[in-house]
Amino acid sequence: MQNIMNGFPPAPEQVVTQANMLHFPQSRWAFHHVRQLVPTVDVWAGPAGQVSAFGSRPWPVRDIAFSGPDGEQLSVGDWLDNTQTDGFIVLNKGDIACEYYPGRMRPHEPHLIMSDTKSVTGLLAADLIARGELDPSAPVTQYLPELKDSAWASATVQQTLDMTTAIAFTEVYDDPQSDINRYAIAAGMAPRPEGYQGPLGMYDYLPTLKQNGEHGEQFTYRTVNPEVIGWILQRLAGMSLNELLSERIWQPMGAQRDAYYVADIYGAPQAGGGLNATLRDVARFADMVRQRGRYNGKTLIDPRVFEDFFIRDYPVKVPEDHYPGGRKGYSYRNFWWLTNNAHSAVQGWGIFGQIIHIDPTTEVVIVKQSSRPEASNNPYSAMANCAFAAISTALAE
Amino acid sequence: MQNIMNGFPPAPEQVVTQANMLHFPQSRWAFHHVRQLVPTVDVWAGPAGQVSAFGSRPWPVRDIAFSGPDGEQLSVGDWLDNTQTDGFIVLNKGDIACEYYPGRMRPHEPHLIMSDTKSVTGLLAADLIARGELDPSAPVTQYLPELKDSAWASATVQQTLDMTTAIAFTEVYDDPQSDINRYAIAAGMAPRPEGYQGPLGMYDYLPTLKQNGEHGEQFTYRTVNPEVIGWILQRLAGMSLNELLSERIWQPMGAQRDAYYVADIYGAPQAGGGLNATLRDVARFADMVRQRGRYNGKTLIDPRVFEDFFIRDYPVKVPEDHYPGGRKGYSYRNFWWLTNNAHSAVQGWGIFGQIIHIDPTTEVVIVKQSSRPEASNNPYSAMANCAFAAISTALAE
Repeated sequence: MQNIMNGFPPAPEQVVTQANMLHFPQSRWAFHHVRQLVPTVDVWAGPAGQVSAFGSRPWPVRDIAFSGPDGEQLSVGDWLDNTQTDGFIVLNKGDIACEYYPGRMRPHEPHLIMSDTKSVTGLLAADLIARGELDPSAPVTQYLPELKDSAWASATVQQTLDMTTAIAFTEVYDDPQSDINRYAIAAGMAPRPEGYQGPLGMYDYLPTLKQNGEHGEQFTYRTVNPEVIGWILQRLAGMSLNELLSERIWQPMGAQRDAYYVADIYGAPQAGGGLNATLRDVARFADMVRQRGRYNGKTLIDPRVFEDFFIRDYPVKVPEDHYPGGRKGYSYRNFWWLTNNAHSAVQGWGIFGQIIHIDPTTEVVIVKQSSRPEASNNPYSAMANCAFAAISTALAE
Repeated sequence: MQNIMNGFPPAPEQVVTQANMLHFPQSRWAFHHVRQLVPTVDVWAGPAGQVSAFGSRPWPVRDIAFSGPDGEQLSVGDWLDNTQTDGFIVLNKGDIACEYYPGRMRPHEPHLIMSDTKSVTGLLAADLIARGELDPSAPVTQYLPELKDSAWASATVQQTLDMTTAIAFTEVYDDPQSDINRYAIAAGMAPRPEGYQGPLGMYDYLPTLKQNGEHGEQFTYRTVNPEVIGWILQRLAGMSLNELLSERIWQPMGAQRDAYYVADIYGAPQAGGGLNATLRDVARFADMVRQRGRYNGKTLIDPRVFEDFFIRDYPVKVPEDHYPGGRKGYSYRNFWWLTNNAHSAVQGWGIFGQIIHIDPTTEVVIVKQSSRPEASNNPYSAMANCAFAAISTALAE
């Protein structure tokens, strides 16, 4: 891992490209060098010198002992060491309890947060809903007539936000023929094969997807749903998603550095998985959510969003067979995972181990950036939740 | 121009891609959105909140009247309006006399500075020479044995820095078969055609170039020379060129924002033409040169570099037939244009109208970022020099 992309030139077998960036161990370097591999668009942090400060409340988080899902005994440090951690931060009532960069990633380097991006998209959508600018019960085609012949022809905005749409789409990351990988080409993440004749960008690709069943019946995780919402946000706001995120959140929250999105050929940010941000900036974002839209002395997100944000038993349930390892009993809403635990914690989950954990009861926020070998969060999720519970308990004492 | 890449999606004829980014009018948008089109590497500005401040000494620079090379009468404003100006700034003894963004580019957006990049590379090399870490009289192969069968097999470092190497290479921007366009593919700037089997990156490409005549005899402008120097700098410094520029200049000078380079497949910054920076940051860089390596209260470049930097009649003369329009009588050294004028001004010149003008006598610095239609600086150079002379005279009064 230490030799990946090192040297002038790097050794041939150590070269990371767009084609292998999701593969382990190349991913250990790639996930904090994404814009060196693909075109990207900035989320401007605003004029320099406006960074919000964190308080400090140190805690030996690595030493916290806990029991894993199968009863095994370990420490948070053991867990971090065994899960390809690139960055790990714990906030206790907004103050930094622990911050940890065990690999090559440095604190100023943005890391790909994968599907945590969806939760950012979902929060921006919830904000527009609360402001009355986006109608969750409206058909998607009210905003995007381009989708009138697609899977979303009869779907509502809320069904799209909750992933209860029924779309013919396979999401198997390690199958090159899976729809998720055809999506990745259109999204600007994966390279176009020689002779490629398919959709060039997301605006071409989304209209080609077809319905497969009844909308509104069950949760089915489909990364194309946040892409539809991202498109709606751009049309409603009259600006690109990266500019919207900059204006609404990144600038007022006092981000330490610009974030950036992977962009498609039309400059459209990948709203389903393309955001890259520093560990501290993801923590700022998450703590803003914990504080119900307020951060850095400002109100960033309409407070009405949070009247029913940290809730239990939202009716969109994650099926038992969907994430058997670690997200049993969860609900899903507006691209956020609702744990339904006693603390009403909510989470963002990204493939290859990106986690945002927000506990509104203990006021603990945890962010983990990783480059895991498997394109799966099972049984990683179950272990993570054991660790999070132990950390929240320890800090609340 | 106002509709280029506007809308979600943009109109098909308004889409800018890597393939048309150097074409006018697409370039008017592309030159301040380069990283949306190609992979790039950051030049980190350092921790936020350390931006150096400019003083202000306003002057109605647009109103300054002057005579063009053919005796025509016009104002600086006329000239700027007629030359696709994206950004224009004049510093008077380090203070801002005028700052102007007449197009779509905003002050925080980095602009491609094209071959002004060479002058940045040259200054970093001169710094290593002054420190004794790089021997200008040494053969290039002392640092890069990989080039032992190439055009640089018998060239010295100084010949490479002064472009007196004799290399079989054609530099005609609007001819797709020109070597400059094959170079652009390897450098990561131009798209690889279908079925491309050529060199993937600069480390593969440079060793393929062959000698064509005797080194040291005459100046011949070849963009591959700064690529060789960039490679040497990386090997000597043990860090990539973007990291070197960050550590030596961008951080200590208090840049307002990260700059970035176009990068090849190995992550190598395009040292001959791939740097992008905000107008003010280019001005900071240029004013640091005017102040002989000092800026923001710090010494960034070894003062010995400037013992003979603003000189006249350096023996590497630009041939009369090389730049007939505007650079008559110039010399060329370390990738800087020496005007040999009475003020010993030096310049950086980028294709499509990027200019850095540093007058050490009047202490005036001028930076112009543009997206000109023609891949040529004739007769633009001649007119620019008339404008610069008038501005320097007016401000010195």
